[in-house]
Amino acid sequence: MAKAGFTLGELAEVLQARLEGDPARVVVGVAPLESAGPDQISFLTDSRYHGAARASRAGAFVAPPDVADLPAPTLRCAAPQQALIDLLRLFHPPAPAPPGIDTTAVVAADARVDPGAAVGPLCVIESRAVIAAGVRLHALVHIGPGVEIGEGTVVYPHVSLREGVRVGRRVVIHAGAVLGADGFGFAFDGVGHRKIPQVGGVLIEDDVEIGANTAIDRATFGDTIIRRGTKIDNLVQVGHNVEIGEHSLLVAQVGIAGSSRLGKGVVLAGQVGVADHLTIGDGVIAGAQTGIAFSLPAGDKVLGTPARPMLQAKRIMVAEARLPEILQRLRALEQRLEKLAAQLGDTTGGAR
Amino acid sequence: MAKAGFTLGELAEVLQARLEGDPARVVVGVAPLESAGPDQISFLTDSRYHGAARASRAGAFVAPPDVADLPAPTLRCAAPQQALIDLLRLFHPPAPAPPGIDTTAVVAADARVDPGAAVGPLCVIESRAVIAAGVRLHALVHIGPGVEIGEGTVVYPHVSLREGVRVGRRVVIHAGAVLGADGFGFAFDGVGHRKIPQVGGVLIEDDVEIGANTAIDRATFGDTIIRRGTKIDNLVQVGHNVEIGEHSLLVAQVGIAGSSRLGKGVVLAGQVGVADHLTIGDGVIAGAQTGIAFSLPAGDKVLGTPARPMLQAKRIMVAEARLPEILQRLRALEQRLEKLAAQLGDTTGGAR
Amino acid sequence: MAKAGFTLGELAEVLQARLEGDPARVVVGVAPLESAGPDQISFLTDSRYHGAARASRAGAFVAPPDVADLPAPTLRCAAPQQALIDLLRLFHPPAPAPPGIDTTAVVAADARVDPGAAVGPLCVIESRAVIAAGVRLHALVHIGPGVEIGEGTVVYPHVSLREGVRVGRRVVIHAGAVLGADGFGFAFDGVGHRKIPQVGGVLIEDDVEIGANTAIDRATFGDTIIRRGTKIDNLVQVGHNVEIGEHSLLVAQVGIAGSSRLGKGVVLAGQVGVADHLTIGDGVIAGAQTGIAFSLPAGDKVLGTPARPMLQAKRIMVAEARLPEILQRLRALEQRLEKLAAQLGDTTGGAR
Repeated sequence: MAKAGFTLGELAEVLQARLEGDPARVVVGVAPLESAGPDQISFLTDSRYHGAARASRAGAFVAPPDVADLPAPTLRCAAPQQALIDLLRLFHPPAPAPPGIDTTAVVAADARVDPGAAVGPLCVIESRAVIAAGVRLHALVHIGPGVEIGEGTVVYPHVSLREGVRVGRRVVIHAGAVLGADGFGFAFDGVGHRKIPQVGGVLIEDDVEIGANTAIDRATFGDTIIRRGTKIDNLVQVGHNVEIGEHSLLVAQVGIAGSSRLGKGVVLAGQVGVADHLTIGDGVIAGAQTGIAFSLPAGDKVLGTPARPMLQAKRIMVAEARLPEILQRLRALEQRLEKLAAQLGDTTGGAR
Repeated sequence: MAKAGFTLGELAEVLQARLEGDPARVVVGVAPLESAGPDQISFLTDSRYHGAARASRAGAFVAPPDVADLPAPTLRCAAPQQALIDLLRLFHPPAPAPPGIDTTAVVAADARVDPGAAVGPLCVIESRAVIAAGVRLHALVHIGPGVEIGEGTVVYPHVSLREGVRVGRRVVIHAGAVLGADGFGFAFDGVGHRKIPQVGGVLIEDDVEIGANTAIDRATFGDTIIRRGTKIDNLVQVGHNVEIGEHSLLVAQVGIAGSSRLGKGVVLAGQVGVADHLTIGDGVIAGAQTGIAFSLPAGDKVLGTPARPMLQAKRIMVAEARLPEILQRLRALEQRLEKLAAQLGDTTGGAR
Repeated sequence: MAKAGFTLGELAEVLQARLEGDPARVVVGVAPLESAGPDQISFLTDSRYHGAARASRAGAFVAPPDVADLPAPTLRCAAPQQALIDLLRLFHPPAPAPPGIDTTAVVAADARVDPGAAVGPLCVIESRAVIAAGVRLHALVHIGPGVEIGEGTVVYPHVSLREGVRVGRRVVIHAGAVLGADGFGFAFDGVGHRKIPQVGGVLIEDDVEIGANTAIDRATFGDTIIRRGTKIDNLVQVGHNVEIGEHSLLVAQVGIAGSSRLGKGVVLAGQVGVADHLTIGDGVIAGAQTGIAFSLPAGDKVLGTPARPMLQAKRIMVAEARLPEILQRLRALEQRLEKLAAQLGDTTGGAR
């Protein structure tokens, strides 16, 4: 997809990197060490990859200052991973979406779509929705009544934002995500489960990313809130009235039950479950499949079901593997003790 | 969103509540204790919230008969949670959907859409589908050939009901749900997995609710069945030929494998898994992330993987935490016993 | 849905079966033993079902050679499950989809849709997409720029294939699946999580099936790859740069983290999680809810979190249930030993 080429001199300037080698050399793309060819630039984010870099056919490298002896011109960067992001954005600029509303989109007369927004084919934008400049709605997106979307936000196909959902700036919502479906709230009336109307909303702050087919329910009252900078992976469930702090990471298939509050910088690995009405402190980290049934203070690192401090959980897992052996040793001890006791003439009772 | 105001006298009548205070006082909305203002009515479902109610700025309360000393006029109700539902329905009536078929919807000539149904923009209704009065299809819904939908059912955007799916009355299907995709059935023929055609259907009875991005597969033969009054949360998987009894609750990300049958009033908390071909009795309750690999009799309360009686599972979890300690104590015992044995001149064998 | 009838003579020929009974007898459908009527043919895949077959009202049977005394004419087949598939395809041929592009579909001028492809209502096909002969796109499908779809592939409603995704022949993609959403890749720059552009693609080989609302992310570089013949159930997450070998089975709600590679014929039961950057060998089988945190050699059968050899995991689960008892026995041993030691005048230390 990359067409334009850049000289290493140009790249050095953009990345504010120190170039070792020919500034006139041209590269036309970015690729990993194993697959890069002589017209591509590759990268090492870490000296661990030195061997692979030595074997690489890449025409140039981005590397940290301390990695020596690379087989091609090298751009030295203090933060090579950030430089890689810059390179990728340079070689793969987002496809242009000409502003305007596709003629096949269905837009309510009283919706306000900024002329600088791009609305794709067969989108539906309902009454009173407000779409800011620079927003891109891909094809077949549904925007409910009164929804607000901030500048520069990108919404992929088949997303549904139900009535009153508010989305900040530079948010990315991947295909099939559903924001603002009713929270799961019922009260048994003796005959059946009666629905508790869910009259709250959903608030997504700036710079959030929401994965494909993820569901974020509307609040019963007030708002379900995702604070700025938080990134949510695919197939994640966020229940009603949940609040997730800034710059958190929720990996795929995580589920968070109603009214739980996560702090800033929380990291939940894949398939983690969080029960309802909990408080998870800033910076908590939970390993994959952890089941969190109790609130956790800031900084906790947990694993397992029930969630336990990570080191303890690992120690338990190791000991668990010895359970059959433990039973054998226990039996042996009991027999031995029985025998000794008999020897001593003690008959006051068995070992059990 | 609430515009109309109601006097407390009017509300007392609707809720059949006893009013303590001025019947002419007007409230314009419902809010929780912490956020309610003087023009809003709030609620206590339980005397536990008495302190919060005392501190609330709410202009009126719905409360159980036994909670005294509230700081504003109070509507006394035997079942305050049911009263709350009544209030919410009063202040937040569902948005009106004028009956009729949006001009941008694509409806097969031989589909039968009742004039009292509302079909949103860019819906697709295929051949022989039957849509009853009072049904609301939001935008971008797909209704497959021969699908039947009963009175008063609401279907949110991007739902797909594949051929032959039958949905009862007053059902709610949230955005992105898929009903009637092929069950996961294959037979290895020595070369590859050959698809077993899934020629059955899906039957959803009255008053069921189905969450966002949930998938309910069609049966191989016969029907996958969700009985009346059952509520299913988001991102739930219901395999082919599963039957779920009346008034059950399936919380988010639950998965039920093929041909399992759940009784009435079953409650599965988040991320529970149920293996295939099991029978889960009436009223079974399973805690979050439980893995059910065997059939369970009516009334069982289970937790953990493998699923065990809840109390036993909790006792095991507590004991598990002591596994490293158990190993230490075992070692200490063995050494002590060895020493005693030596003292006694017993050399017939170690403790192990 | 079945209308045509077939004589048993015709079926014997198609199935290459030996018929015991009247070749002129007509059956009009296929049904399981319990529900089949006299005008239907039923089947036994195994002699275990002999009792049910004896009680069946079916007008004919497909059965293995060794099952005697059936109450109706019987077609003898060496592989009755394969014969069942043949029967189902015969009685339930796929609904015909007349080739051509529905007038309500939105197709880019430079997309190439083979005249033998069927494009349903309100599909969106973007620039440079290539759709082969015999492809069927159901309603409301989104095909991104440059996507390629091979012959005979079926795509159900609300599927989104993002830019550059390549899909082979005879693939089935169920409703709501998302292929090619961005992988979950970010790098913290001291202020927030910066997005690593995901510039790779997704490659789906021939004869793959992908379940409803499943998400398969695009690679950071290169491709996320699903090899031929692999079947993926609903609500599965496949992370960026994952590669899944031929003829594997991924049951519902499985999650596979980035860059992991699965071999051929791998079977992951429901809700299994696989961590990132692992290598899972050919033929590995993992039981439901297994959490795989380490690479596994070919042929391993694992269960539990952490994943352990299946027999060991089951032995541990059994022993786990005895943990409270183990603690009691340990305490009893310690007390008994203390007492014996006292008797011997040993006071060098407690059993602990």
